[in-house]
Amino acid sequence: MQNFVFQNPTKLVFGKGMIAKLAELIPAGCRLMITFGGGSVKRNGVYEEVCAALAGRTWTEFWGIEPNPSIETLRKAIAQGKAEGVDFLLAVGGGSVIDGTKLISAGLRYEGDAWDLVRRGSWSDTVPLGTVLTLPATGSEMNSGAVISRLETREKYAFYSNFPRFSVLDPEKTFTLPEHQVACGLSDTFVHVMEQYMTTTGQSRVMDRWAEGLLQTVVEIAPKILGRERDYDLMADFMLTATMGLNGFVALGVTQDWATHMIGHELTALHGLTHGATLAIVFNGTLRVLRDQKRGKILQYGARVWGITEGTEEERIDRTIARTEEFFRSLGLSTRLSEEGIGEETIAEIERRFNASGVAHGEAKNVTGAVARRILEACR
Amino acid sequence: MQNFVFQNPTKLVFGKGMIAKLAELIPAGCRLMITFGGGSVKRNGVYEEVCAALAGRTWTEFWGIEPNPSIETLRKAIAQGKAEGVDFLLAVGGGSVIDGTKLISAGLRYEGDAWDLVRRGSWSDTVPLGTVLTLPATGSEMNSGAVISRLETREKYAFYSNFPRFSVLDPEKTFTLPEHQVACGLSDTFVHVMEQYMTTTGQSRVMDRWAEGLLQTVVEIAPKILGRERDYDLMADFMLTATMGLNGFVALGVTQDWATHMIGHELTALHGLTHGATLAIVFNGTLRVLRDQKRGKILQYGARVWGITEGTEEERIDRTIARTEEFFRSLGLSTRLSEEGIGEETIAEIERRFNASGVAHGEAKNVTGAVARRILEACR
Repeated sequence: MQNFVFQNPTKLVFGKGMIAKLAELIPAGCRLMITFGGGSVKRNGVYEEVCAALAGRTWTEFWGIEPNPSIETLRKAIAQGKAEGVDFLLAVGGGSVIDGTKLISAGLRYEGDAWDLVRRGSWSDTVPLGTVLTLPATGSEMNSGAVISRLETREKYAFYSNFPRFSVLDPEKTFTLPEHQVACGLSDTFVHVMEQYMTTTGQSRVMDRWAEGLLQTVVEIAPKILGRERDYDLMADFMLTATMGLNGFVALGVTQDWATHMIGHELTALHGLTHGATLAIVFNGTLRVLRDQKRGKILQYGARVWGITEGTEEERIDRTIARTEEFFRSLGLSTRLSEEGIGEETIAEIERRFNASGVAHGEAKNVTGAVARRILEACR
Repeated sequence: MQNFVFQNPTKLVFGKGMIAKLAELIPAGCRLMITFGGGSVKRNGVYEEVCAALAGRTWTEFWGIEPNPSIETLRKAIAQGKAEGVDFLLAVGGGSVIDGTKLISAGLRYEGDAWDLVRRGSWSDTVPLGTVLTLPATGSEMNSGAVISRLETREKYAFYSNFPRFSVLDPEKTFTLPEHQVACGLSDTFVHVMEQYMTTTGQSRVMDRWAEGLLQTVVEIAPKILGRERDYDLMADFMLTATMGLNGFVALGVTQDWATHMIGHELTALHGLTHGATLAIVFNGTLRVLRDQKRGKILQYGARVWGITEGTEEERIDRTIARTEEFFRSLGLSTRLSEEGIGEETIAEIERRFNASGVAHGEAKNVTGAVARRILEACR
C-alpha cells in the first residue's frame, strides 16, 4: 500500500424529503446564488422543493450551465455573482452544474479571467458551495474536482478546488431521468471505479474489495434500472454508488490510471459526446491495449465481478474483456468509435494533442500519443 | 435505504514515516498536551519519532491512560491540562488512549466533573485533538465515539464528542504488538463490522458489499498475521480495515445492532476482559439467539464470506454460525464464558443491569435483560 493523506469533509444529506434541510444547511443572512442547468428541475419538482425549503430567504439565480460546462457560460455567472456580492453558492443539478459552480466559487475570489484558474489546475480560495444532486454519475457532489470546457478552442481540462460543504441527494428525484442519461451515469460510475482499480494487484485488499463491491452493485442494478424499474432502494443504491465511486473512498493507498478519461475528454471536446458514453467506448480499447500490464487485475476482476474462473489465463482475459464490452452494450451505449461516426481524423487529432501536451497518462505514465492511438484503434 | 446524514472530517495520514508530518499537522504556538498509555511507545520507537517530529516545540505529557480508560485517571489529566492552559491534544497509543483523550478534550472545556459528560452521553465543545495510532482495533482514530469506565462502580458507557482533526497511522508501528492484542484487534474489527451489517437484508447493496469486503479481508489476513507474518502490506490492510470498520463508511443508510457490544462492555466492566475478547464470546450467542430475526443476513454472510451455499437454509445457518465461532477460536480467543470462569452470577448481574437501564438494545430494540441472559447462556 502506498502512503496517502485522505480527507473528505463534505456532509452527505441523503434520502427522500431531504431537500427540506436546505434551510439549516445554508447559513442565514448569506448572499446566495443558486445555479441551474437547462430547466429539468422545473419539471421534476426539484426547483419547487428548493424554493419551499428556502421560503422567506432571498437569493439570485443563474440558469443555463450546460452539459460539459463552458468557460464562456461560467464567466457570465462569475460576473453576475461579483456584481451581487455573492458569498454562498448552491448548485442544483447534475455533475455539470456542480462542476461549473466549483469554478464559479473560485472565480468569485479571483480578479482575473477564470480560465487562468482552469489552466493553473487548482485554486483553493473559494466561496462556500452546497449542492442538490439530480443525476447520479460524476461524483462531483463529494469531491473537489471539476471538468471545464472551452468551446472556442474545443479544449477540456480537469480543475480542482473545494469540496462541497454539503450535498443533498434524494433518490426520488432520479425517477424521471431520461434513459440515455441513466445509461451514461451507470457507465461513468463503472469507469470511475475502474480508473482507481484496474491497475496492479496486491496494493490493498480492502480497496480491491470495495471497488469490486461498487462494480458488482452497478452490474446488479443496471438491468433493473434500464428495465424501467424505479423502486426507491434501487435508485438509492445507484445514487450512493455513483457518489462512493469518486469521493476518494476506494482510492486509499492505491495507484490510479485515468488514461481512459483523458482520451474520453478529448472525444467530448471534439465531438460533444456525453462523458459516460465516451468511456463506454474507450475503456474496452484500454483493456485490450494494456492487457499485459493489467493482466493480474483483469483476471481478479473477471473472477470476482463476472465469475470467470475457468480456462487458461488468456481465455479468461479474453472473456473478461468481451464481457465488459457486452455490459456497456447492455446499457444501450455504443462501444465502438465507428458507431458514432468517428474515424482517423479524430484519432490523429487526439494523438497530436497527447504528444503536444508532453504528458504521458495512465498508471504507468506510458499512455503517450502513440498508445492513445492504439487504444482508439482497438475500439474503432 | 434509510435517510442519513454523514460527515467525517478526520484527516487520515497513512503510511511509513508519516509521524514526521506531525510538525505540519499540529498548529505552531499551541499549548500542546501529549497523552500516552503505559509505555510501549518508548519500546517500539513511536515516542522517539514523535519527539523528533516536534523538535523545537514545547509540550506537556500525561502518561498512564489504561486499557478501558477510567474517569479516575482522566480526571487527573483534565486537571493537569487545565492548570497548564492546554489548547491542543495529541493522543499517542491505541483506542483506549484515544478514547480517554476524547473525554479530556471535552473535560478541558467543562467546569464540572467530566463524569457528568459521560452520563450525558455527548459533548460538542472540545479542545482539538489529533492522534498517532499504534494498535488497529477500535476505529476511535476516525470517529467521534469513546468508551469510558468508572472503576469505583464498575460501569462503562459510550460517549460522543469530537472527531480527531487528524490521525497518523504507520503500519510499521504495529509489527511488535503482542499476539493477544493483535487477536483482540482482529476480533474487535470483525464485530464492529458485524454490528453494522448483521441486521436485515436488502437495505443497501453497496453497504452490504463493503461490509462483506472488510469481513473477507479480516478472514484473509488473520491467519497470516497470527502466523507471525509481518509484511508491510499485510499490516497496512489490517490497520486500514480496522479504521474503515468504524468510521461510518459501512453504516450509510442501514440499521445497526450493537447488542453484542452492550453485553461485551458489561463483561469488561465486571471482569476486566479485553474488549475484543468479550466480543469473540458474545457474538456467537447473539447469532444463536437472534437466528430467526437475522436469518436472511446470516445466509447472505455465510454465502459471501464463507462460501457456504449447499444444504437447507437451517443447515447453512448452522454451519455459518459454527464457522464464525471457529474463526474466533482460530484467533486464539475464548468463545465460551466458561473458559473465562464466568457463570451464573455475572449473567444475573448483566440481566439486572439491562433491566435497570430500562433500555432494550439491538436492531429491533428487543434485547432486554431476559434476551441478554439467553445470549449469555447460549455462549456459556
